[in-house]
Amino acid sequence: MINLQSLYKISYGLYIVSSGDKSKGNGFIANTVFQVTAEPPNFAVCCNKNNYTSEFIKKTGAFAFSALARSASPEIFGKFGYRSGKDLDKMAGTTVTYENTGVPIVLDECVAYFECKLVQTFDAGTHLIFIGELLNSHIIDDASEPLTYSYYRNVKKGIVPKNAPTYIDKARIEAELEVRNSKKFRCMVCGYIYDESVEPVKFKDLPDNWICPVCGSEKSEFEELQ
Amino acid sequence: MINLQSLYKISYGLYIVSSGDKSKGNGFIANTVFQVTAEPPNFAVCCNKNNYTSEFIKKTGAFAFSALARSASPEIFGKFGYRSGKDLDKMAGTTVTYENTGVPIVLDECVAYFECKLVQTFDAGTHLIFIGELLNSHIIDDASEPLTYSYYRNVKKGIVPKNAPTYIDKARIEAELEVRNSKKFRCMVCGYIYDESVEPVKFKDLPDNWICPVCGSEKSEFEELQ
Repeated sequence: MINLQSLYKISYGLYIVSSGDKSKGNGFIANTVFQVTAEPPNFAVCCNKNNYTSEFIKKTGAFAFSALARSASPEIFGKFGYRSGKDLDKMAGTTVTYENTGVPIVLDECVAYFECKLVQTFDAGTHLIFIGELLNSHIIDDASEPLTYSYYRNVKKGIVPKNAPTYIDKARIEAELEVRNSKKFRCMVCGYIYDESVEPVKFKDLPDNWICPVCGSEKSEFEELQ
Repeated sequence: MINLQSLYKISYGLYIVSSGDKSKGNGFIANTVFQVTAEPPNFAVCCNKNNYTSEFIKKTGAFAFSALARSASPEIFGKFGYRSGKDLDKMAGTTVTYENTGVPIVLDECVAYFECKLVQTFDAGTHLIFIGELLNSHIIDDASEPLTYSYYRNVKKGIVPKNAPTYIDKARIEAELEVRNSKKFRCMVCGYIYDESVEPVKFKDLPDNWICPVCGSEKSEFEELQ
């Protein structure tokens, strides 16, 4: 028997994993970043096979990851956590640096960054485990705490995107949503509620390019609250 | 350039990883435990090739991990973090349960446990990455917080054992030790100081089977402070 609540006892940080080059780069938010060996200092990053960034990692043989700050905004989760780089140039408007390998390294809202040369790739089913040797790392903001998954979930009330390796307790999320009895639509990224009773337009009548006024997520990222 | 301090911005939990059977089991403390896929719910555990527990995992095709509580004692770190099961039966005196696979699962000072069937093993150089499918998991103590590596290091002042995958900043540890100017011996496990100026016996004259009065670590786990 698997107790789904027990999975919340496993601790993770949250990172923007990035790859590509100056002409085109991409990044996504991951919780599974960890050191696997000390000599050499090699790190593993777990990435869904459908993830657009994984194509860049394979092509360039390099990746970076930046540890998000506890204060990270809904906007950065909206951009890197819930949208595909296939439809959006995520590096546009993002502060990045290019160093040893030429991959874009995200500096916005992060406390430290790490740049790795890809040395091994393991196939773990739906996900790939990329192993990279650390070439370069720096602290961006030593005064801020790194964001943990626990803080993101409990304090920021964030929800896990569908490609994440973390097991999603859909039943639990649905039960939480059912508690609310009025007909409303909730942004899955930042939690913003579009409440038809106080808005001039029904949610379904909003244009397709309407975006969340708080975090900029697309209309498709909203769920109707029953 | 690698900034060693940046490595402390990566978040981990702390776990007792265990394997074996009722006649003989073993366990060790790991920080690299993480979910790699959601369907099926597979977890990765990183283990030094010299680690005694890795032999049991390979032999039994199963392992468990228990998430340590924030209140975990120096004694449990002494037993599972700094001693080899080759010399000590770690399961003696430990509260364990045997469930789906027959491996010992540690309950002491932990908040939740997870039992996995080994499905893949990846060779990452000095360490192996074991991938296990989660069969069984339970919460032991829902009122306590899980221990994080950051809390262990910053609040408990713990030091990483030599087999850990985490990159050890030896220079930094030595610099911290050099700050202390009297001739003393420090337990690397719990930080207890054996101060010759207030003890009746010189440290070198203590018997070989002398153990740390706080955590029970062996004499060899002490370092002389210069």
